Amino acid sequence: MVSPPAAAYDSVRAVDWRGDHLCLLDQRRLPLEETYIDCRSAADVGRAIGELAVRGAPAIGIAAAWGVVLAAQAGAEVERAIAALRATRPTAVNLMWALDRMRRALARGADAAALAHEARAIQDEDLAANRRMGALGADLIAPGSGVLTHCNTGSLATAGFGTALGVIRAGFAAGRIDRVFAGETRPWLQGARLTMWELQRDGIPATLVADSAAAHLMQSGAVQWVIVGADRIVANGDTANKVGTHQLAIVARHFGVRFMVVAPASTVDMATPEGSDIDIELRAPDELLGYAGQRTVVAGAAAWNPVFDVTPGSLIDALVTERGVIEHPDARHMAALFGTAA
Amino acid sequence: MVSPPAAAYDSVRAVDWRGDHLCLLDQRRLPLEETYIDCRSAADVGRAIGELAVRGAPAIGIAAAWGVVLAAQAGAEVERAIAALRATRPTAVNLMWALDRMRRALARGADAAALAHEARAIQDEDLAANRRMGALGADLIAPGSGVLTHCNTGSLATAGFGTALGVIRAGFAAGRIDRVFAGETRPWLQGARLTMWELQRDGIPATLVADSAAAHLMQSGAVQWVIVGADRIVANGDTANKVGTHQLAIVARHFGVRFMVVAPASTVDMATPEGSDIDIELRAPDELLGYAGQRTVVAGAAAWNPVFDVTPGSLIDALVTERGVIEHPDARHMAALFGTAA
Repeated sequence: MVSPPAAAYDSVRAVDWRGDHLCLLDQRRLPLEETYIDCRSAADVGRAIGELAVRGAPAIGIAAAWGVVLAAQAGAEVERAIAALRATRPTAVNLMWALDRMRRALARGADAAALAHEARAIQDEDLAANRRMGALGADLIAPGSGVLTHCNTGSLATAGFGTALGVIRAGFAAGRIDRVFAGETRPWLQGARLTMWELQRDGIPATLVADSAAAHLMQSGAVQWVIVGADRIVANGDTANKVGTHQLAIVARHFGVRFMVVAPASTVDMATPEGSDIDIELRAPDELLGYAGQRTVVAGAAAWNPVFDVTPGSLIDALVTERGVIEHPDARHMAALFGTAA
Repeated sequence: MVSPPAAAYDSVRAVDWRGDHLCLLDQRRLPLEETYIDCRSAADVGRAIGELAVRGAPAIGIAAAWGVVLAAQAGAEVERAIAALRATRPTAVNLMWALDRMRRALARGADAAALAHEARAIQDEDLAANRRMGALGADLIAPGSGVLTHCNTGSLATAGFGTALGVIRAGFAAGRIDRVFAGETRPWLQGARLTMWELQRDGIPATLVADSAAAHLMQSGAVQWVIVGADRIVANGDTANKVGTHQLAIVARHFGVRFMVVAPASTVDMATPEGSDIDIELRAPDELLGYAGQRTVVAGAAAWNPVFDVTPGSLIDALVTERGVIEHPDARHMAALFGTAA
């Protein structure tokens, strides 16, 4: 296995607990401004999640866990806070997983301090899982490879280090990855705004491409792996992730480029049998009709803005979690590693 | 064959000769502003082409032909003007085709008036070809279909009516097309800015989608055809078009959605054997580093900005030209309709 990467390749903390409030790096304003939001209530956290100030499946789960702590510290009705946080975004299962874990702690009689201990554990375990996945994923990559990633799956999207971007960090540190390409990821431009920023901070050379240029890039031979994160992985290996992931998987298979999904076990939802059962979030058409307050499309235009899609397990060459790697995930392999739904 | 569409479905003229100058609708400012540029020299026309004030393979060819007329009217060295115009953009073959046709007129001793006659013929023939292709293409589409298009291939990109968008106009008028989806087409947003604007002017209901949402859209069953234009179609049917076309073709084949290319015979380049021989224009990285004039990516970031890609003929279900339809284009079918290179 490749040696652990230098700690230097992980210089951002997007979700930071300060004892009596939660400090979030406002991802809507990156990379132009590095500003922070102080959340002093569960409602503040819920709003930050709904407005994408904090985004990325694991980071949403962690932020929501701290939201529960804020509710408990304020003496608010914690179950109601949990219900409100759960409703902020429908697709990423880490949110439900983290809130269920906080609810179980509450059922065991946890007070605010014990809930803070549980939230800290969720955050610390996510960071450790990312380091482990980085090593496992990098191990699959031949030295001198090029990779393409989509959306942002780095420190901004997690407790730190990242999922897909963690594999890229580990692979770069180990000399297995030479070239990193990031897709823009319309409409919210997580790749352009966030991934390019994170990689530059870490000194990892990266090249931005239009989402539409992926086929031309793969055909050129410059990339050997597409590496992405996940918002929900269901019992047969079908994987919901940022819209555009499914077509990258189809195009990768067409060109013989390998396709890797990297996500912690908290992203796995064994209670959902297959991808068609996943609720895909539709966001406001406005996100497609302009940028940064400037309209680009004729007034009155309609837009359809699904922000996730579902890649069938059959198009995934390697699913990397902290529990291990599944090649060609299907219901049997998933059950072997993750058991069956309770 | 479906009846010709109402003339109402064609309300824009992007390239308009005014006797002593060429008036171009400035496509960089649409849809926010409808402003025009007066070109009074071949150099003005060359600049407008290079800066994308006029774009779209047939429209570029027509504008360049009028540029030659301006050079002749000014008593300038016409051959030098032709060489400069030819160098403005490398991929679309209509530019070379139109300039070659003007050069042949010049070789026959044409004066400025005779050259203007030739340019007018090029423009009129393009409009007639578009009407014919609209009818031929619409004929392939079953009533009640949904279609997805990419980039802008309408009146703005041609002498009028459009290529792929001409088929969509004709298909909508004939009741064969119910639903039109337009991909944004990063980085220049021709779909978001131009196609949505054209379709709204014509009262054709259209829905904008992110380029990355195409697979999710096709999987939903909402579209039966992807319909696109072309910048160069070579002897084996391989087709250069706006970047993103190739992956739409791969994804369409994956889902059993049919794929149609619509372009006039002036787009066919029988002298080039296959797609890998086509010069793909790389434009400035800047086009990817911002959005609507606002920087979106961290300073110092690199970007790769190929603006075309090549779809293999084997992924094309129907190639529609004014000379007829080729299903599953290959070298044999292409030679039968277009002959061989001189």
